[in-house]
Amino acid sequence: MFLYDTTLRDGAQGQSVTFSLQDKEQIAFRLDEVGMHFIEAGNPASNPRDAELYERLRAWKPKNARLVAFGSTHRVGVRAHEDAGLNVLAGVGCECAAIFGKSWDFHVTDVLRTTLQDNLNMIYDSVRFLTRAGKTVFFDAEHFFDGYAANPRYALETLEAARSAGAEFLVLCDTNGGTLPEDIRNAVSAVCGKYAGHVGIHCHNDSGVAVAGSLTAVRMGATMVQGTINGLGERCGNADLCSVIPNLVLKMHIDCFPHLPEITALSHYVSSVANLSHDARLPYVGQSAFTHKGGMHIDGVLKNPKTFEHIRPESVGNSRAFLISDLAGRNSLIARIHEVDPGIEKDSPIVQHIFGKLKQMEFEGYHFEDADDSFLLMVRKQLGLYKRFYEVLDFQVFCQRPEDVTYTIATIKVRVGNQVEVTAAEGDGPVNALDCALRKVLTIFYPQLEKLRLTDFKVRVVSDGGTASRVRVFIRSTDGTHSFGTVGVSTSILQAAWTALVDSIDAMLLCSLDGGA
Amino acid sequence: MFLYDTTLRDGAQGQSVTFSLQDKEQIAFRLDEVGMHFIEAGNPASNPRDAELYERLRAWKPKNARLVAFGSTHRVGVRAHEDAGLNVLAGVGCECAAIFGKSWDFHVTDVLRTTLQDNLNMIYDSVRFLTRAGKTVFFDAEHFFDGYAANPRYALETLEAARSAGAEFLVLCDTNGGTLPEDIRNAVSAVCGKYAGHVGIHCHNDSGVAVAGSLTAVRMGATMVQGTINGLGERCGNADLCSVIPNLVLKMHIDCFPHLPEITALSHYVSSVANLSHDARLPYVGQSAFTHKGGMHIDGVLKNPKTFEHIRPESVGNSRAFLISDLAGRNSLIARIHEVDPGIEKDSPIVQHIFGKLKQMEFEGYHFEDADDSFLLMVRKQLGLYKRFYEVLDFQVFCQRPEDVTYTIATIKVRVGNQVEVTAAEGDGPVNALDCALRKVLTIFYPQLEKLRLTDFKVRVVSDGGTASRVRVFIRSTDGTHSFGTVGVSTSILQAAWTALVDSIDAMLLCSLDGGA
Repeated sequence: MFLYDTTLRDGAQGQSVTFSLQDKEQIAFRLDEVGMHFIEAGNPASNPRDAELYERLRAWKPKNARLVAFGSTHRVGVRAHEDAGLNVLAGVGCECAAIFGKSWDFHVTDVLRTTLQDNLNMIYDSVRFLTRAGKTVFFDAEHFFDGYAANPRYALETLEAARSAGAEFLVLCDTNGGTLPEDIRNAVSAVCGKYAGHVGIHCHNDSGVAVAGSLTAVRMGATMVQGTINGLGERCGNADLCSVIPNLVLKMHIDCFPHLPEITALSHYVSSVANLSHDARLPYVGQSAFTHKGGMHIDGVLKNPKTFEHIRPESVGNSRAFLISDLAGRNSLIARIHEVDPGIEKDSPIVQHIFGKLKQMEFEGYHFEDADDSFLLMVRKQLGLYKRFYEVLDFQVFCQRPEDVTYTIATIKVRVGNQVEVTAAEGDGPVNALDCALRKVLTIFYPQLEKLRLTDFKVRVVSDGGTASRVRVFIRSTDGTHSFGTVGVSTSILQAAWTALVDSIDAMLLCSLDGGA
Repeated sequence: MFLYDTTLRDGAQGQSVTFSLQDKEQIAFRLDEVGMHFIEAGNPASNPRDAELYERLRAWKPKNARLVAFGSTHRVGVRAHEDAGLNVLAGVGCECAAIFGKSWDFHVTDVLRTTLQDNLNMIYDSVRFLTRAGKTVFFDAEHFFDGYAANPRYALETLEAARSAGAEFLVLCDTNGGTLPEDIRNAVSAVCGKYAGHVGIHCHNDSGVAVAGSLTAVRMGATMVQGTINGLGERCGNADLCSVIPNLVLKMHIDCFPHLPEITALSHYVSSVANLSHDARLPYVGQSAFTHKGGMHIDGVLKNPKTFEHIRPESVGNSRAFLISDLAGRNSLIARIHEVDPGIEKDSPIVQHIFGKLKQMEFEGYHFEDADDSFLLMVRKQLGLYKRFYEVLDFQVFCQRPEDVTYTIATIKVRVGNQVEVTAAEGDGPVNALDCALRKVLTIFYPQLEKLRLTDFKVRVVSDGGTASRVRVFIRSTDGTHSFGTVGVSTSILQAAWTALVDSIDAMLLCSLDGGA
């Protein structure tokens, strides 16, 4: 079984996805390290940045992977050896080339606007040109499944043209992502009957079934799966290799990816390089994938994880978590309290007291589900284990609108030990100004706070009544390594945000000083 | 084919998902309107908020849907008629009850810690108790597929116990989400052989194949599909009905959802109520689903949309997008523009200009889905039909924290005609103080504003970067009769809230003076 990653080519077609040259290089290195078999990094003929990338990668000696350059069959009206794109592919430093060609008759007549026979010649001549140049060639049969549905004989002829010209793999592409697994099953089965061992699958997720379609193709005999990390790609994206690979290894017992426990880190790495937020609900690799909320589920998992986990989270490098919510049960709360102090007896009065405090705070509108660190700080306070790092003596915020822009300044006065400091900061709005002022003054005492930055900020009204009603502010922040979730509730946004900000600073200081909150 | 929505019950188990009572009611009404067949709104026996919800919905007469209350088989060691949960289900106002029971032998022995026979009795007695109470009962066979793999005879016996006690539907649940479609195919096929017309499917997405698994079950004979809007749910979520339904209707030609063109709006509505960002890559309903980035794709779509679109975007109420022009959605936007001025020609330059402005605002982070009134005010401004009711000459907001409470005061200066007025107001935080001051001073000129009050207020970060990044503020307000939705976007919460507040006041004044915005 061959795993073929096209994150850097098809993935880059996704909305909001932009990779720099360096990004592409770094991701290619990482994909190689974890054991990907093929890496399609770009289209050197159509894109100058990709041309430079392949130039830079000329000297690269991958450990596991083979690098592939992507392009297409030659243009209508020229001969293969005259085609600029094919000549670029023939000249790049890597051994493999993938070219796409039309396999749906409608595309030949209505997009290429040539004859069906001419398209077959284009495929044959293009593949032949590249194999003669010494390349291992993969033929991407674009729109294969639509073509097979419309004119199966012609779709199969395009494959035969490529294969007879020496293509190593015939990759069946569901380019529009509209094919259901049932139809993939029938088409792949027909193709594998003739070309066993040389058939690949490339699915898009427009119907929400790209992963299932890829698995079905493998069951029917395909031996190469193409996809992208986190399913990045045009429109709804490609088949997500972070789901496909664990399914192949753990469910279908196809031993194709020895570094499976690194796949969660790989998934996060690609999101982080692409500067995209990581979808918590991604199967296998998402932050919620083994996170339990319902009390009955938490109780079950505490008895035996396989009650509500389909695999061991460690097998994909992910981890289990329990959420603090009104749906969570007593046992899961005690497990969290034990993170702060493992010695607490579960029937002790202090546990009762913490439960009471939690109930009261939830009644006021607190929600700790996304705000673990505020919950742990609350537990610490109730247990008398809270360390006060500083004292705020006063703050003031002043906003005015001289023109059409709100201009805001905050002043703040804090004491640490015997030292009192005052400072001021400007900001975009009152919350930001206060945040800037607080961190500015505290960095004098705790320089590590310089690394702390906010990554998300959410406000929700808890009860009806408009801006004067109670609001809940969630903050997510990071010191570059750890992520902190905190929450504040108040009738005032400013006060609620302040509570959450202060918790995030406490959480980071605890983490940096004590080695863990 | 029956569509069964459990967004409000299983969906609420998802991380970061919290529905208030009002949220649940509003979503239930909307699900009914678009034609969902069954709505499972909560678990009235385990959750006081859900108990109140079912109380409030007692008088509701849905147009299309049937409301379902969720619970479980009776506890070990009590009789069915003594079980508190079953008695709650028997007493709720709705006709249908869904109860889950164990169908995996391992769960019976290791979680329930009772005998296999006792579990069969529990299932039979619980279903019987509810059917005798006049309920239509759905039996959710929890972990059915794991149970069928481990001990198929016993798994089938649990179904027989439920069916012989009068359960209308046997819902096969892939509770842990670990089953691949191939295994669903075999199990459903076996069950449908015996219980044709009474089999449902309930998939979770832990392997990334929940949609495909649901479709496979339907192909094998299941006639009820359970899922959630946007796939919300525990861990990686449930089968996403926003993918399942279009696949059933458009691909499998099962005519089960006449309001298909409303599904994109429904999907956005649920995200908005839950205050979750809407995933752009969602199949069918995501903002990127018909957004073309690659030049070759755009060229193809301009020649013929079916070159790179698997369905017509309008069939699911979505629209096509690419850089050059926004042809899709054009007609619906023109209809909205005609609400302001019915005389506008649809090909006139001013319409182009409004489209350009809309695109630019959307690029800045505006979203008019829940903010109709801001959209109509924008159109009015572009058409030169905007009436300025007042001019704000200056404002200032001042916050300080003498003790532990933030004290805030705002001053404001406005002109109406030749009259200038200055006032000040206190508030809970800067947004509220400013809101109070603005309405206080304007009520001098427009006494009807006294009736205006805010009913909802939501803040969301548009891009990464913490409190200094761009925020979007949604406001919903009412004059007691009409409801106004407005939106503002800025780097500052205060400025964004101010934009939305000013729009809400304009919308109400327009409505009260002109008889409509």
